Amino acid sequence: VGANVNGKANFLPIAWFMQAARRPPKVAVALNRAHYTNQGIKENKTFSVCIPSEDMVAATDHCGLVSGSKADKSGVFEVFYGKLKTAPLITECPVNIECSLDKVVDNGSNELFIGNIVSTYTEEKYLTDGAVDLKKTKPFMLSLNDHQYHVLGKPKAKAWNVGKNFKP
Amino acid sequence: VGANVNGKANFLPIAWFMQAARRPPKVAVALNRAHYTNQGIKENKTFSVCIPSEDMVAATDHCGLVSGSKADKSGVFEVFYGKLKTAPLITECPVNIECSLDKVVDNGSNELFIGNIVSTYTEEKYLTDGAVDLKKTKPFMLSLNDHQYHVLGKPKAKAWNVGKNFKP
Repeated sequence: VGANVNGKANFLPIAWFMQAARRPPKVAVALNRAHYTNQGIKENKTFSVCIPSEDMVAATDHCGLVSGSKADKSGVFEVFYGKLKTAPLITECPVNIECSLDKVVDNGSNELFIGNIVSTYTEEKYLTDGAVDLKKTKPFMLSLNDHQYHVLGKPKAKAWNVGKNFKP
Repeated sequence: VGANVNGKANFLPIAWFMQAARRPPKVAVALNRAHYTNQGIKENKTFSVCIPSEDMVAATDHCGLVSGSKADKSGVFEVFYGKLKTAPLITECPVNIECSLDKVVDNGSNELFIGNIVSTYTEEKYLTDGAVDLKKTKPFMLSLNDHQYHVLGKPKAKAWNVGKNFKP
C-alpha cells in the first residue's frame, strides 16, 4: 500500500487486502493503526495498491522492516503519479491500483480503508486476451503462520465448471 | 461463507475475503447484495468462513453454480454448529471460522460483512508447531481473470528476513 506522508512517497507491505465491490469498483485494505502510512491516507484522501512480482520480494520485504517514520522509503522504487497526483505508484510493479479514499472503518487494532478505484495501470506484456494474466505478473502472498512469502500455485480446476457434475 | 437462511445451512463460495483486524480478531467478506446468503447473515447476525481444501474443489464450485433460493445446499457437506448455534460449519473443511456479525458496510453492488471471530476449528493433523500449516490444509483461490482455481505455490522467501540485506 502506498501513500504520500508529509510530502514523500511511502510504501507498506500488507497481507490483508481484497476487492470490496464490483460496481463501483472498490478495494479494502486493513492496516494496523500504528502504521505511518495511515496518516498519509487520511491527509490526502488517496492511496495506492501496488502489486509486486516475485522478483521484487526483497525490496517489498525491506519496506516491511523499516517504518517510514524513521527511514525515507521514497527511493526504494521508481515512483510515478497518476490522475490523483498524491497516490504514489511503482514503475516496477506489474499492476498498480490508484484509489481515492471512500471511507475508513474503525476495527479495533486496525483501520479498514475502503478506496474507489480511479485507475489501474499495467503493461501490454502482462496481458493475455486483454486481461491481466497472473502467470505473467507473478504475484506472491504472505502466510502469517510460518512467515513465508508464497508464489502462486498451478491452476487446479476451472471455476463455474468443475462443479457441474458434482452430486451431493 | 456459510449462513443459515430460513432455518437451513447455506454456503456460497467467495473470493473477496480477508482478515480485517488482529485485536479483537475480525474477518471481512464482500458479498454481492443479490446473494441469498446475505439475508441469513442479517437475520441471525452470524456467519462462518469455511476454508476448503484442494480435494473439495468440485463441491465448492457446485455451491457457486446454484443459488440457495432455488436449491437446498444443506446436504452438500456434513454440517456442524458451534457456540453461536446458527453459523453452519463444515466437517470436511480443514479450517472453520465462526463469526458474530460486527457490522455491515454498504459498498454499492456489494455488502461488506465484518465479523468478530468467536471460534476457529481445525484438527491436530493440520497443525505444525501449534499453528495451521498451509501445506497440510491445501487451500485454493479463485482468479477472476481466467476463472481458474489456483492452489498455493511454493514458499519463495522468508518474510521480515529476505529484505534485511536489500539496498535501495
